[in-house]
Amino acid sequence: MSDATTTVRPPMPAPGSAGHLLQLLRDSDACTRPQLVELSGISRSAVSQRIEALLAAGLVVQDGAGASTGGRPAVRLRFHHENGLVLVADLGATHAQLAVTDLAGTVLAEQAENWAVADGPEPVLDAVRACFDALLTRIGRSRDEVRGIGIGLPGPVEHGSGRAVSPPIMPGWDGFPVPRHFADFDVPVLVDNDVNIMALGEYWTAWRAQVDDLLFIKVGTGIGCGVIASGRVHRGAQGAAGDIGHVRVPDADHALCRCGNTGCVEAVAGGQAIADRLRALGRDAHDARDVVALVKAGDREATRAVREAGRELGRVLAAAVNFFNPAVIVIGGDLANAHEQLLAGVREVVYRRSLPLATRHLRVVPAQEGERAGITGASAMVLAEVLAPSAVDRLVNGVT
Amino acid sequence: MSDATTTVRPPMPAPGSAGHLLQLLRDSDACTRPQLVELSGISRSAVSQRIEALLAAGLVVQDGAGASTGGRPAVRLRFHHENGLVLVADLGATHAQLAVTDLAGTVLAEQAENWAVADGPEPVLDAVRACFDALLTRIGRSRDEVRGIGIGLPGPVEHGSGRAVSPPIMPGWDGFPVPRHFADFDVPVLVDNDVNIMALGEYWTAWRAQVDDLLFIKVGTGIGCGVIASGRVHRGAQGAAGDIGHVRVPDADHALCRCGNTGCVEAVAGGQAIADRLRALGRDAHDARDVVALVKAGDREATRAVREAGRELGRVLAAAVNFFNPAVIVIGGDLANAHEQLLAGVREVVYRRSLPLATRHLRVVPAQEGERAGITGASAMVLAEVLAPSAVDRLVNGVT
Repeated sequence: MSDATTTVRPPMPAPGSAGHLLQLLRDSDACTRPQLVELSGISRSAVSQRIEALLAAGLVVQDGAGASTGGRPAVRLRFHHENGLVLVADLGATHAQLAVTDLAGTVLAEQAENWAVADGPEPVLDAVRACFDALLTRIGRSRDEVRGIGIGLPGPVEHGSGRAVSPPIMPGWDGFPVPRHFADFDVPVLVDNDVNIMALGEYWTAWRAQVDDLLFIKVGTGIGCGVIASGRVHRGAQGAAGDIGHVRVPDADHALCRCGNTGCVEAVAGGQAIADRLRALGRDAHDARDVVALVKAGDREATRAVREAGRELGRVLAAAVNFFNPAVIVIGGDLANAHEQLLAGVREVVYRRSLPLATRHLRVVPAQEGERAGITGASAMVLAEVLAPSAVDRLVNGVT
Repeated sequence: MSDATTTVRPPMPAPGSAGHLLQLLRDSDACTRPQLVELSGISRSAVSQRIEALLAAGLVVQDGAGASTGGRPAVRLRFHHENGLVLVADLGATHAQLAVTDLAGTVLAEQAENWAVADGPEPVLDAVRACFDALLTRIGRSRDEVRGIGIGLPGPVEHGSGRAVSPPIMPGWDGFPVPRHFADFDVPVLVDNDVNIMALGEYWTAWRAQVDDLLFIKVGTGIGCGVIASGRVHRGAQGAAGDIGHVRVPDADHALCRCGNTGCVEAVAGGQAIADRLRALGRDAHDARDVVALVKAGDREATRAVREAGRELGRVLAAAVNFFNPAVIVIGGDLANAHEQLLAGVREVVYRRSLPLATRHLRVVPAQEGERAGITGASAMVLAEVLAPSAVDRLVNGVT
C-alpha cells in the first residue's frame, strides 16, 4: 500500500456523532463537555458543535454546575428524558398492562385491565387506544409528546411489519397489521411477542450494564424463551426464536401437548401440565397460580412436581446453554413465583449436563421485574429504535 | 414536547458517513455519485465530500465512465479492494491452510501444510509467520500492504484477547496470546475457533446477501456448530457458543465421550464414533474419511450408520431450530462428504420435530466452500473489523 497513514487499527471508538454522544449521556447520570471529549475520543470543538445540536433538538439539557477543576465550574449535561413519552401495552391472554413512560423508560402512569385477547384485534386495540388517551389525561400530557408506541402480544409476531403470525390463542389476529391501528399518532409503532418484551425488560432493568447474552424463560401455562444476543432481541428468520416449549424431552411420549405433538417439555413441565397432574392426585389445582399456592402452603406433591418440572426444563436449557452460551438465565412467569424449587431443579440439571466452559460463570436467577417486565421491555424496545444513534443523527441534522 | 419537528420516524437509513458509503460500494459492483446519493439518502455535496476523503485514503477508486443519463457520463466509483492484503491461517489438528487475500476476500495465494497443532504455539506460529512471508514473496507483495491477520484454531478461543482457552487437543496453547506473536506486523490480529471461521466463510460466500441467521455444522472426528446471528458470529459469554457436540441424546448412555460424559451426540454421531462401530463390524475404518470412502463404495452398514448419525444430529438440531430459528443449516466437515445420507437423516428428524413456523422456509444444505471455508471466513472476520464503518470513519478523518 502506498500510503502508510491508511493503516487501520482496532479497537475503534465509536465515531462520535451526535447520536453516539447522546448514547454516552443516556448511559451516565450526567457529563461535562470535557468528560464527553475524553469518553468519545473526538475533539473539543466537535463535541461542542454536536452538543449544541442536541440542545437545540431538546434531547439534552444543561443541569447546573459540575465539579470544578480549578477554573470555572464545567456545565453538566444530561439526557433530557422528560422531553417525550412512550405508550406501551403488554397484552396477555386474559389480562393487559398499559403504561406511559418517559424517554428513560420510567413509568409515569400505568393501568391493569382484564381484557381477553380472544375478543379480536379491533375491540382490543380500540380499548388500548382509549386507555392510552386516559393515561395521558391522568398525567396532564398530550399526544404531541408521544415519541413511539410499543405493543406486546401473546403469540408469534412478524416484528418488521407488526403483524401477528398464526397465533394459536388469538382468533382473528392472524396477519392483522397492529401499527396501522395507531397510524393517527404518527409515531413508530413496534410490536413483539410478550416473552421477547419481558426478556428485554429484565435485561434493560437489571442486566444490560453487565452482560450481553441472556435467556429469559417464561414458565406459565406454557413455556417460552426470550433470547437476548449481543444486547438485542434475537428473533430468528421467521420470528420464531425462543420457542423451546415444544422441544422434546426423553421419556415423555405419554404427554400430549396442545401443539398436537407428544413429549414436549411444556406438556410435562408447563404450569398447566403440573396443575393437571396435581388435580389427578385430588388437589384443587387448575393453573400455574394454583400450583404456586400449593407449594407455598407446603404441599409435598406440589413441591415435588415443581422441582421435577425444573429438572425437565433444565434438560432443555442444558442444550440451549451449550448452543448459545448465555451469561445469565432469568426464570420468570407465574410458576416462577415458586422459584426456589423451580430454580433448584433447573440448576441441578444445567450445571451437571452443560459444558464446564459454558457454565463457569453462568447465573440462573429469578426474574426481578414481575408484572412490569412487559411494559418496561416494550418501552425499551421503542427507545432502542427512536434513540438509536442513526435516528438521533437524522433528527439532529433535520433540526439544525 | 414543544417542538414538533423533533418527532422521530423509522425506518432510518444509515447516517451516511464515509464508512457507510464504503459499505454501499463494497456491496455493489460499482456506483456513480448520483446512485450513492439515492442509495444513502444524504445530500449530493455530502456524498462528494465523503467520496473525496475515501479516494484520498485509497479505499475508493474511479473506474471509467458509467451509464450516461443524457448529460456527461457519470464517473463510476468502486471499492479499491486491491489496495491492501489480509493474511489468514486455518490451523487444524494435523493440517493447516494458509492464504493471502485482497480486501474483497479473494484468495491471491494459498498453501496447505501438514503441521501438528500439538507441537505447541511457538513452533507452529513461527511456521505460520514464515509461510506468510513466503506467500507475500510469491505474489511480489510486501508486509507494508497487510491490513490485518486472521487465525483459526481447533479449540475454544477468547476472541477479545485472541487466547486459546483450555483447548483439549492443543497442549501448550492454553492462554497463549496469539496476537502478540504477530505484533511486528503492526496490524489487527483476530483469532477464533475453526468452526466459527468456517461458518463465517460459508455465510460470507454463499448466504450473506439472502439470510441473517445461519447454523454451520461441522461433522468430522467430533461435532461442532458455528452460529451466525444477524450476520455476525455469535460467540456467547465465554466464547463457548455452538458447542453442540456434547448435548445428550436419548438412549445413548452406553456411549462414552472423549469429554468424560456419556451419551453426547458426538459419541454416537461423530465421525470417530461411526468409524469405531464399523471397525467392530470388521470394516477397515479409522476416521471420518474412511467412513465416507465406505459409503461411496456402497457399503450398506456404513450407509446405514451415516444415515442414523444424521438422525441423531437431527434430534439435537431440532431443538436448536426451535430455539434459534435459523434460515439455513449448512452441514460441513469430513463426514459431510457423504452428505446425501447425512442430510437425509438430519432433514427427516428436523422437519418432523421442529415447529412448523420455524421450518416453513428452513433449508438444510451441504457446505459449498470445502477446504477453503476456513481461510475465506478468517479473511471475512478481519475485513468486518478493519472495514467497519466506524473504523473507516476514523481512518478517513485521520487522513483528510
